Amino acid sequence: MNRAEYLILRNLVNGPKGYWQLIRNMDIDIRTFQDSLKGLLEKEIIDHKAGFFSLTKSGLSEAKRFGFSGFRSIVCPDCGGKGISLKPFMEILERFEELVKFRPRAISEYDQGYIEPKDTVARVFLMYELGDVEGKEIVLLGDDDLTSLALLLTGWPKRVTVLEIDERILEFINDVKTDKGWDNLDLIRYDVREPVSDKLKESFDVFFTDPVETREGIRLFLSRCVSTLKGTEGVGYFGLTHLEASRAKWHTIQQDILNMGFVITDIIRNFHTYLLNRDDILNLGLRVVKDAPVSVNRPDIDFYTSNLFRIYAIKKPEPILKDKVELGRDLYFDEEAYVTRK
Amino acid sequence: MNRAEYLILRNLVNGPKGYWQLIRNMDIDIRTFQDSLKGLLEKEIIDHKAGFFSLTKSGLSEAKRFGFSGFRSIVCPDCGGKGISLKPFMEILERFEELVKFRPRAISEYDQGYIEPKDTVARVFLMYELGDVEGKEIVLLGDDDLTSLALLLTGWPKRVTVLEIDERILEFINDVKTDKGWDNLDLIRYDVREPVSDKLKESFDVFFTDPVETREGIRLFLSRCVSTLKGTEGVGYFGLTHLEASRAKWHTIQQDILNMGFVITDIIRNFHTYLLNRDDILNLGLRVVKDAPVSVNRPDIDFYTSNLFRIYAIKKPEPILKDKVELGRDLYFDEEAYVTRK
Repeated sequence: MNRAEYLILRNLVNGPKGYWQLIRNMDIDIRTFQDSLKGLLEKEIIDHKAGFFSLTKSGLSEAKRFGFSGFRSIVCPDCGGKGISLKPFMEILERFEELVKFRPRAISEYDQGYIEPKDTVARVFLMYELGDVEGKEIVLLGDDDLTSLALLLTGWPKRVTVLEIDERILEFINDVKTDKGWDNLDLIRYDVREPVSDKLKESFDVFFTDPVETREGIRLFLSRCVSTLKGTEGVGYFGLTHLEASRAKWHTIQQDILNMGFVITDIIRNFHTYLLNRDDILNLGLRVVKDAPVSVNRPDIDFYTSNLFRIYAIKKPEPILKDKVELGRDLYFDEEAYVTRK
Repeated sequence: MNRAEYLILRNLVNGPKGYWQLIRNMDIDIRTFQDSLKGLLEKEIIDHKAGFFSLTKSGLSEAKRFGFSGFRSIVCPDCGGKGISLKPFMEILERFEELVKFRPRAISEYDQGYIEPKDTVARVFLMYELGDVEGKEIVLLGDDDLTSLALLLTGWPKRVTVLEIDERILEFINDVKTDKGWDNLDLIRYDVREPVSDKLKESFDVFFTDPVETREGIRLFLSRCVSTLKGTEGVGYFGLTHLEASRAKWHTIQQDILNMGFVITDIIRNFHTYLLNRDDILNLGLRVVKDAPVSVNRPDIDFYTSNLFRIYAIKKPEPILKDKVELGRDLYFDEEAYVTRK
């Protein structure tokens, strides 16, 4: 029995669960999850009725073999597993939530999908906790989460630069910038397929990006970010799912990170929860729905999460990709893309 | 200004701090920390009086340059940054604390030093949360923390095997085993310089080890553990400090991990706090005291922490070292060992 099957069984010992809840409780890529679910259904270890999966008699005896006694998650209820508490800075969260009320709608053309506002703010405070915000020059490659606004609200960074392809987001941030009079916030329209300008190269202490998750795409995003760092001791943060990036893909990404001169200092599981449009998930013909082994309903929870990586340069960082690239839709889409739209 | 200097300044903006508190608040190896402290003292950015470091006038203006406004750590007060809560299982913690009351004293000959009992139990529950305990065959290479007892108290593992060089620890665990009638706990005297026996090879689902932190030592510990895993999807947990393993050393360790067929899935900062003997720290001639740029007092806090790694095999794991090795004290001691005894 593989890990996905093991985790599915463990989850069903407590009683029936829906498709989206199972995905939320796995650390497995969706393709493997679907395959495992299919296998368990075929072997009649689980069955599916009225939108819920449950253990069959044979499933119950399999579960007994592992000694499953009814799993209860013990993720810290206070911090949600992030390891930091926002309580001392709730006012910043409130101000951020106020600011982003009228943000532009996410569009799948750019692989956009917002995370919860509290996760954006938590990200900024984690960076603060780890000594990567105060007095720092910070670059964000893509900012549909509006991390720049959360950073500026703290008053701590020396400078924040946003590189973003979507004019709507640039305009939205610019309106806030004008309103607040923030002169240490730079907004630059930028297409990741182009190298960054010489002016941006080797200019920043810290980067954040939430890259696309194809192998070439993430290599490209990280390379562009890496080229903006000043040198040794440069720090990067990025999000990575386990849902659309298999552990095998993680391996190539981690090898890229080491090859570019970085070490991984932190990986925080499920740091971000995405507020994806639930109707879109059901209706856009995504593989997470289309290729499921059963007929799937509209998501009843926010099932899509990502992990937060922090990396640190032990020598002068070297991007793997330096030149212009010609990637089209394959920048966004590969055989593991099950929620990202083709 | 390097990262260590930056973090020292940030810590002193709030007021004077002692040597051990500064170490606790860094994520820097002790050698670099000492060098940076020395540099700041020489440049008169900080001074040292009556056991406390503080900012000089020039230090204050440096701090102003970074906009430091008085750092307050926001590590989650509920879970201490571990991301999990023991509250549903407090009874196990109490029973564990009872069991380990009369544990053998740590001896530096084997690089021993216990972590807080609650950290041992938290480690077991993190492994549980991540699906690596129930019904699993688990091997522990070295068990001065008595993780085996915490694992068995839960009743969840299929089998736990302890490989340990110290007879006192084996006897202590064996006494508990006899008392409890645990027949799924195996105790084996083992010297890491020898390959594991054929009987142990490819026999386990999960390993845990808290290795020595020399490059060769950690490679050896991880290789031995890796050789015990059944295959793809095998999981390993281990502790690693940033105090005696520089980020450069982390890089070689992470490369070893990838080379052996694993991906890193989680790195949780400061998961373990060590209860080192404070008199020993002061009196044993350790470099953390001897090479400090000022005269150092007995530690007033538990300053020594380590990070918890989880790794996952994406293919059949391959140990780097397979044969007997002849490492002597250099197994334990290298140029970054500042608390480990020569």
